[in-house]
Amino acid sequence: MTRFIAAGMLFLTICFTVWINTVLADTLRATGDLGVVVERSTGSLLIVDQSERAAIGRIEGLGDLSHASVVFSPDQRFAFVFGRDGGLSKVDLLTQTVAGRVLQSGNAIGGAISDDGALVAVSNYEPGGVRVFDAETLEMVADIPTGSKTIGLVDAPARRFVFTLWEAGETWIADFSRDEPEITRIEGIGKNPYDALITADGRHYIAGLFGEDGLTALDLWQSPPLPRRILGGYGRGEKALPVYKMPHLEGWALAGERFVLPAVGRHEVLWVDARSLEETGRTKTHGQPVFAVSRPDGRQVWVNFAHPLNDTVQVIDTPSGEVIHSLKPGPAVLHIEFTPRGHEVWVSVRDAGRIDIYDTHSFEKLGEIAAETPSGIFFTARAHRTGL
Amino acid sequence: MTRFIAAGMLFLTICFTVWINTVLADTLRATGDLGVVVERSTGSLLIVDQSERAAIGRIEGLGDLSHASVVFSPDQRFAFVFGRDGGLSKVDLLTQTVAGRVLQSGNAIGGAISDDGALVAVSNYEPGGVRVFDAETLEMVADIPTGSKTIGLVDAPARRFVFTLWEAGETWIADFSRDEPEITRIEGIGKNPYDALITADGRHYIAGLFGEDGLTALDLWQSPPLPRRILGGYGRGEKALPVYKMPHLEGWALAGERFVLPAVGRHEVLWVDARSLEETGRTKTHGQPVFAVSRPDGRQVWVNFAHPLNDTVQVIDTPSGEVIHSLKPGPAVLHIEFTPRGHEVWVSVRDAGRIDIYDTHSFEKLGEIAAETPSGIFFTARAHRTGL
Repeated sequence: MTRFIAAGMLFLTICFTVWINTVLADTLRATGDLGVVVERSTGSLLIVDQSERAAIGRIEGLGDLSHASVVFSPDQRFAFVFGRDGGLSKVDLLTQTVAGRVLQSGNAIGGAISDDGALVAVSNYEPGGVRVFDAETLEMVADIPTGSKTIGLVDAPARRFVFTLWEAGETWIADFSRDEPEITRIEGIGKNPYDALITADGRHYIAGLFGEDGLTALDLWQSPPLPRRILGGYGRGEKALPVYKMPHLEGWALAGERFVLPAVGRHEVLWVDARSLEETGRTKTHGQPVFAVSRPDGRQVWVNFAHPLNDTVQVIDTPSGEVIHSLKPGPAVLHIEFTPRGHEVWVSVRDAGRIDIYDTHSFEKLGEIAAETPSGIFFTARAHRTGL
Repeated sequence: MTRFIAAGMLFLTICFTVWINTVLADTLRATGDLGVVVERSTGSLLIVDQSERAAIGRIEGLGDLSHASVVFSPDQRFAFVFGRDGGLSKVDLLTQTVAGRVLQSGNAIGGAISDDGALVAVSNYEPGGVRVFDAETLEMVADIPTGSKTIGLVDAPARRFVFTLWEAGETWIADFSRDEPEITRIEGIGKNPYDALITADGRHYIAGLFGEDGLTALDLWQSPPLPRRILGGYGRGEKALPVYKMPHLEGWALAGERFVLPAVGRHEVLWVDARSLEETGRTKTHGQPVFAVSRPDGRQVWVNFAHPLNDTVQVIDTPSGEVIHSLKPGPAVLHIEFTPRGHEVWVSVRDAGRIDIYDTHSFEKLGEIAAETPSGIFFTARAHRTGL
């Protein structure tokens, strides 16, 4: 009898060991090729795998994601989701759970993570200002009231955040490299800056103006940076055009030696010399561009458009500046995200409830993924880029 | 009695569930902040975690790693290690095991992974040529004999590999975007090209020449690319200088608007205009530079030196071109690797058996890690860059 029990226990132990190893192997997952898709209307996040071209999970209960953005921890395990309702959620991509969540204001517009991954900052409309949180615990470590709506919040090298004040027309640099944050205020940015970007090298911060034409550039290598007006013809013009959506300024990636940016209210993209920041040409497009995104190698630019022409995507060849391909993925193309080395591109088609995946060289469609009103697509490779 | 057994089983089940969850949570690990350090003399690889500033494992039995390099799969789970003895090893960073290994030639020099992560290519001395393997299985999918030693193998966008022939002075482009590889041969690269690089955007391929002065640039956006001689004064000069080590050409990162590269046989680095590829200046350095590596934001360049001055690292400020900091980590500094957003730098000090970690803004030393004769340091963020 004892022998039977012993044999049984040995057998169970072996079964158990085999089973444990299977569970462990199944559980292991690398995070370099993951990403998330914001599902606007349901306040959820779809977790996706680029290599599998598939969704691998869904996280719910993230509040109002009607204008949400996402940044990632340096290890690419955690996504920090900035909701429209001031919610800051920390999502664990490996366990597929919400690791933390705070409702940090009434109304927010985007956020950023410091270059060392230790701090997460959120830009607020109501109340204005920026709040900074410990990325580990989501405890607030700094509150920077501005008396103004804040927009264009980005990270800059050396534990700095840069953001701009809508009413005051100022840009502030908050330096967190020492114990106490140090603020540098730069006045004279212009009338009603509505969005801003930082170039991929973290050097130039450029704000778009709603209240006047032109943009304002700051060279962060200067100390203090002096505002410089560029592209005086950029904007709605003297006879204000009907603008369906102010274009996003995020992601002026270098396309060869030029930046490309969406015109305001016109069916055009503009080419800007990356060195002089002067306009060098324009390309006519299908509609009013919303995003003009450069493929990581800069050889192509993919463009989507404002309502009512938002069923189309155009591809522009950088050296010639010519449209070389058009496609109609479907109703309401909201976002475009390239795989990190640019061999594929993911396109969210909100009203079709679909993400489409294309080969960027052959333009062949490689796959699709069902999603609830998908908008922003964010791949974890962003963790390693400045200003994304 | 039955009740006791039932209670006991319930208790055991609870204990077991708690334990399993603990094991699973401990086992989960993201891969975005991992890396490997090549341990030259022991043929082993140290697995490191950037966030913990620590080693987390060691892989042994990888053959002759006296001149080894590493690339990563797109998910950042697997490291492909190219040994001097022709060994190609696939290391799983999560299970910390060798997932595959082939001895694919007698003598090899570096490799590359295609932009989609499907193909791994190895550059061989003996026999010459390039062999291409399935990244999943390590089965050979193409053998490209060249009748010449091959050097300067890199990946280029659209499933292409580019490499150069030492004896023949030719560069070949192998295009794997269709079923059969298509080879484009470009003659007239120069006498004895010894190393080459591709710029971060995948556009310019530049070969250094051992047999004559100057370098040869190819613009891969041209079809076919035409060789163009640049920097005629670059090399050993008419009165050949004593060269302790030909400098590495890998990693001409953009430093602002200029590339920086190590001079040959001189105590200098050269500044090259990124657009015209013409020399714009030089900075005097402590010794003959081996690596001149740009911090990801381009604001600093860190330089190490050839024997016998190889105990020192210098930091150059990009806008002024001046040396702003010197440090002496110890004997035989062999490699320098920045964290992806540049806030820290890791330095391998071979003869001290140590990796040193510095803050790149304050220059404060943040930590050190023991390693056996460490040489190359490779962080997984390379998976998402072209030509690394």
